[in-house]
Amino acid sequence: MATTKLIEYEAASSEVRAVYDDIRATRKTDFINNFWKALAVNPAQLARTWESAKCVMAPGALDPMTKELIYIAVSVANKCEYCIHSHTAAARAKGMTDAQYAELIAVIGMAHSTNGLVTTMQVPVDEVFKVV
Amino acid sequence: MATTKLIEYEAASSEVRAVYDDIRATRKTDFINNFWKALAVNPAQLARTWESAKCVMAPGALDPMTKELIYIAVSVANKCEYCIHSHTAAARAKGMTDAQYAELIAVIGMAHSTNGLVTTMQVPVDEVFKVV
Amino acid sequence: MATTKLIEYEAASSEVRAVYDDIRATRKTDFINNFWKALAVNPAQLARTWESAKCVMAPGALDPMTKELIYIAVSVANKCEYCIHSHTAAARAKGMTDAQYAELIAVIGMAHSTNGLVTTMQVPVDEVFKVV
Amino acid sequence: MATTKLIEYEAASSEVRAVYDDIRATRKTDFINNFWKALAVNPAQLARTWESAKCVMAPGALDPMTKELIYIAVSVANKCEYCIHSHTAAARAKGMTDAQYAELIAVIGMAHSTNGLVTTMQVPVDEVFKVV
Amino acid sequence: MATTKLIEYEAASSEVRAVYDDIRATRKTDFINNFWKALAVNPAQLARTWESAKCVMAPGALDPMTKELIYIAVSVANKCEYCIHSHTAAARAKGMTDAQYAELIAVIGMAHSTNGLVTTMQVPVDEVFKVV
Amino acid sequence: MATTKLIEYEAASSEVRAVYDDIRATRKTDFINNFWKALAVNPAQLARTWESAKCVMAPGALDPMTKELIYIAVSVANKCEYCIHSHTAAARAKGMTDAQYAELIAVIGMAHSTNGLVTTMQVPVDEVFKVV
Repeated sequence: MATTKLIEYEAASSEVRAVYDDIRATRKTDFINNFWKALAVNPAQLARTWESAKCVMAPGALDPMTKELIYIAVSVANKCEYCIHSHTAAARAKGMTDAQYAELIAVIGMAHSTNGLVTTMQVPVDEVFKVV
Repeated sequence: MATTKLIEYEAASSEVRAVYDDIRATRKTDFINNFWKALAVNPAQLARTWESAKCVMAPGALDPMTKELIYIAVSVANKCEYCIHSHTAAARAKGMTDAQYAELIAVIGMAHSTNGLVTTMQVPVDEVFKVV
Repeated sequence: MATTKLIEYEAASSEVRAVYDDIRATRKTDFINNFWKALAVNPAQLARTWESAKCVMAPGALDPMTKELIYIAVSVANKCEYCIHSHTAAARAKGMTDAQYAELIAVIGMAHSTNGLVTTMQVPVDEVFKVV
Repeated sequence: MATTKLIEYEAASSEVRAVYDDIRATRKTDFINNFWKALAVNPAQLARTWESAKCVMAPGALDPMTKELIYIAVSVANKCEYCIHSHTAAARAKGMTDAQYAELIAVIGMAHSTNGLVTTMQVPVDEVFKVV
Repeated sequence: MATTKLIEYEAASSEVRAVYDDIRATRKTDFINNFWKALAVNPAQLARTWESAKCVMAPGALDPMTKELIYIAVSVANKCEYCIHSHTAAARAKGMTDAQYAELIAVIGMAHSTNGLVTTMQVPVDEVFKVV
Repeated sequence: MATTKLIEYEAASSEVRAVYDDIRATRKTDFINNFWKALAVNPAQLARTWESAKCVMAPGALDPMTKELIYIAVSVANKCEYCIHSHTAAARAKGMTDAQYAELIAVIGMAHSTNGLVTTMQVPVDEVFKVV
């Protein structure tokens, strides 16, 4: 029930196919998930988003699994069902254990709770936290 | 400009002081931040929240700094200014480097972007992600 | 799976029918979408909401299609699936082209991204923006 | 009270200066707003975000002012104070009149209201809206 | 730091003054809070919003204080600082005790927590809850 | 389509069964809803969350039905479909009438609307609301 159509490889322009090919090569799988097929209605945006994702999610000062945990946390707070499913699958593929997942859930629940408490009470920021 | 008063140690009941004492002992610092001082208007909730926080944020399958990064991610998506400041400070205290912080920002920005794109297009969840 | 029942024209009170009749006359179609049928459990609220919608969404200093784009943008950020679908359909009915829709998606994605980046970094508002 | 420092032109690396120079040239003003100065702690992200913004916000199938209205709408629903201020200023600079602004406010208020109503009642999407 | 100016009684048109007069008469106070002064830039919207508020917040099947508690709960989850302050003040004026406020905070915190937990785990709705 | 499995009583550890037994005894029903079955993958969190819920939702300065209305309000603004369904069912079980539900919907809609209006205009908090 998308609001836009999904573009399969066979129906794609060469510009879109080039991105799909790079996704497949980078991820070492033929599978292209629906997000990219939907974005493909705007080839420039597809290319831009993929370039950003490839760059941002690559190993760096943070390891790829930690980045997926952060991605899940944002997606939960933003209530993006698709993103929660796709990044939970990605985190598992990158090694997230059941014990780590249980702790991720606990931290997300705790953060939501204190976010709600703090906002209700409008707690002023402590001077000591204003380090910059 | 809180909507409730902050309770200092000196003015606190023995029930509240017991929690403050445990916060100080656990964190090895005399500093009690405003969140706990605000929560103290409801001593039972103060005790319950501190017990949960102590348990959830302790080292486990995920290390304490990673838990802080997840906490920041939720707090950003939930727009909790106090929580963003306090947990960014906590992450730094637990060893977050400038390079790690720069990548955290990048992942949070990327996640927000794709959350928005996916939600606009109402992309259906791929069957392969439905592992449970 | 609504939490309240939908009231069809045939089962509606005369007060509700009067609103349905005005929706049909204003929109030049017999179709009444589910939102109004759900609101009809509270006839006063149905009437008030329809009056507001008729007034707010009418042509004015902004054209009706632009108003629909703004409506979609809010509904995406608020994660209202029903509203995203109904207002995307409305925008198309009012002339939104595929190219315009692709740009709408891009702007919504960009805005989400910078909203997330700004909130993470708690960027202070520039003095020059404080025009009022 | 940012969580990261702001980098001025004089203190910037040549990589960051190149982006600042392009912002100035594109916008025909010497003014660099705080968002870019904060992003500059991660030069690669600064460059990527500016490239996206330049591309996404350029005139296209939608005119630049309409894009700013959409940007404001998302930023309001996402509660990004900085973004609301900066894009309201941008919309005015691109010709938004007081009458248009008053209507923008009205549409955003209306959308929030019906988002809340629909979500409370969990109104099912009408079949006719499922066009894709 | 509003994005629009506030209109005082003395500077208001007769249309706006009529609404201000009704607010004063209904609330039995000369005080007009900033929300109405900001809305007054669009007199039709001011009148419409006040009429809705007067109607919705009046005593009915729910008492006025309970309505304020619900209003605070929405405003917290929507992160509207102004609304949290104004409706917390209104709830107190309508008789909210410190004990009730402490329980309100606890329920809001609990709800945020389980909202986050449920969303992370994407818990399916039990059949028994689908009563309509 | 949960991201984690649901644990039935028969497959549960004695630690989890003890919580399920207490839920059944407290609620005077054999029914365990999916939320608890999902949480059970982390028995410590299950126990902690149930203890908090039992304590927070018990009769006190606010009656149980009012607490459910507040819970629904938060869940709507946080877009938690499961929570909206489960707490609407709970509110009905605790005596919420159709007339009360219609007014709840109206207040939630009104609050969303003014949250959106206030945030767009960035209305400054009146001095008189700053009581603490």
